[in-house]
Amino acid sequence: MVGGAEKWVMMVTAQTPTNIAVIKYWGKRDESLILPVNDSISVTLDPDHLCTTTTVAVSPSFERDRMWLNGKEISLSGGRYQNCLREIRSRASDVEDEENGIKIPKKDWDKLHLHIASYNNFPTAAGLASSAAGFACLVFSLAKLMNVKEDQSKLSAIARQGSGSACRSLFGGFVKWIMGRDEDGRDSLAVQLADEKHWDDLFIIIAVVSSRQKETSSTTGMRETVETSLLLKHRAKEIVPKRILQMEEAIKNRDFTSFAQLACADSNQFHAVCLDTSPPIFYMNDTSHRVISIAEKWNRSEGGRRWHILLMRAQMQY
Amino acid sequence: MVGGAEKWVMMVTAQTPTNIAVIKYWGKRDESLILPVNDSISVTLDPDHLCTTTTVAVSPSFERDRMWLNGKEISLSGGRYQNCLREIRSRASDVEDEENGIKIPKKDWDKLHLHIASYNNFPTAAGLASSAAGFACLVFSLAKLMNVKEDQSKLSAIARQGSGSACRSLFGGFVKWIMGRDEDGRDSLAVQLADEKHWDDLFIIIAVVSSRQKETSSTTGMRETVETSLLLKHRAKEIVPKRILQMEEAIKNRDFTSFAQLACADSNQFHAVCLDTSPPIFYMNDTSHRVISIAEKWNRSEGGRRWHILLMRAQMQY
Repeated sequence: MVGGAEKWVMMVTAQTPTNIAVIKYWGKRDESLILPVNDSISVTLDPDHLCTTTTVAVSPSFERDRMWLNGKEISLSGGRYQNCLREIRSRASDVEDEENGIKIPKKDWDKLHLHIASYNNFPTAAGLASSAAGFACLVFSLAKLMNVKEDQSKLSAIARQGSGSACRSLFGGFVKWIMGRDEDGRDSLAVQLADEKHWDDLFIIIAVVSSRQKETSSTTGMRETVETSLLLKHRAKEIVPKRILQMEEAIKNRDFTSFAQLACADSNQFHAVCLDTSPPIFYMNDTSHRVISIAEKWNRSEGGRRWHILLMRAQMQY
Repeated sequence: MVGGAEKWVMMVTAQTPTNIAVIKYWGKRDESLILPVNDSISVTLDPDHLCTTTTVAVSPSFERDRMWLNGKEISLSGGRYQNCLREIRSRASDVEDEENGIKIPKKDWDKLHLHIASYNNFPTAAGLASSAAGFACLVFSLAKLMNVKEDQSKLSAIARQGSGSACRSLFGGFVKWIMGRDEDGRDSLAVQLADEKHWDDLFIIIAVVSSRQKETSSTTGMRETVETSLLLKHRAKEIVPKRILQMEEAIKNRDFTSFAQLACADSNQFHAVCLDTSPPIFYMNDTSHRVISIAEKWNRSEGGRRWHILLMRAQMQY
């Protein structure tokens, strides 16, 4: 490696918003590659609001890969981090910073270590897709640092291996995660349906009804639903494919009534299959119930004809 | 009519327990006849515990049919009461009380009026099947008073027209409500699978987590689920028929593990299709969630090998 001195550090900082699914992802057909049982569609939030900020740094003085999340060091030994790091490193290119006289040839990326600092400006693991924003930001910032020349969809397939819904945060606006058919997962990736300007009078209000960590992690929850719910298969095979087409149409036409009805119905069905799991998974509490009931009443009232409350509710949105 | 005097009153008092479904009834295919979309199976509780006590009285001095529920007069004009009264009256026989010198010929029942007093020793409309016990008791006591010579299953088809699950309270022990196929509903009735002595070390603990009336009545809730849930049809057609066979087998063999697993799974699925309804129906609250979580943990622990907590939970059991 050629650097001005062994003391150099090169870094990249990126910011990635979280995304809220309007047709939900719940259930994997392959746990290690993170391949879902159905397509999903989401809205990426404004990066000024809920987002992850990640700084990735490389230096010959770093002795091993390390990461800090919200200021606390966490382990990178898990398969999900290792998969993302490996996939990005394997696509690294030559990097040159002429100004600082730093040059990193492609072959050196395997030997260089990384320090990663990530920060969420919203509650972690409370149902607000912190891992989606987190892994999308990690993959994006590493790709910038290592001069990876893949397009966003290809990067999304890498982020997917960190956290499924992360693939959708690589794009702004309205995003579809295509479940794919290939066994190796190469066609399970995100595509943008419409950019953030397409429907710029759509506002999303997030009500955090609890900022405690979920009692059942998404990974565990999905696994148990796939193993025990008799309703999930019917949802994935028969219901979601039709809803995906209807949702794409609603987004294309900026048809808010259809958009809101589909999103609410699909959110409720996601919670329904969680309940149909053994043991049952509860991601809503009494406050969620009350908020939903009020919003439903509003939507059915006179005011609802003018604008709908579309519940993008905390405690689990994928 | 021939009586000792016009002042006579003849009365019958009966007591009927409520029943708790272990394979649930949720959804009608015919609203006025109360015909369900699937078979269901229940356990009838001990009449010493949760029950309705009803006294029916007839007298030539009564000017119209009247009814009191928990001491408060209620209207009998609804179709459900009218259907039960009409069906029972049409099957009345001659009645003779030699001791008191009262004789009521069959043809007089159409002209005589009734006073009905009913009392629940548990919260009404809070998910404890008060209408099941109530209509079963009403039909049973009227049948006694009017000397109706039908068997219990035939009576169950009348009680069904008052409240669907009432048909199951005409029997003790383990009871199956056969959904039937006929359009007029004559084959939609209850049969006893096993009597109360068959499994006499089975104990049912009912935890009342809220004694407030439900926000959505069963009638409204079922209608909205039938109209809007995409999961209900799959449940009724594909899932319940298999579970009914498994549950009958579990009861026959007193196989508590299977019995408990099926009952819990089916209760959860009932709540799941409620959530899949638009607007969603919530029959559980945070306390229910906590009780279930504790019971699930117990059942999976060492203690669970010796005995299971089977949740027969308040807030809706059909």
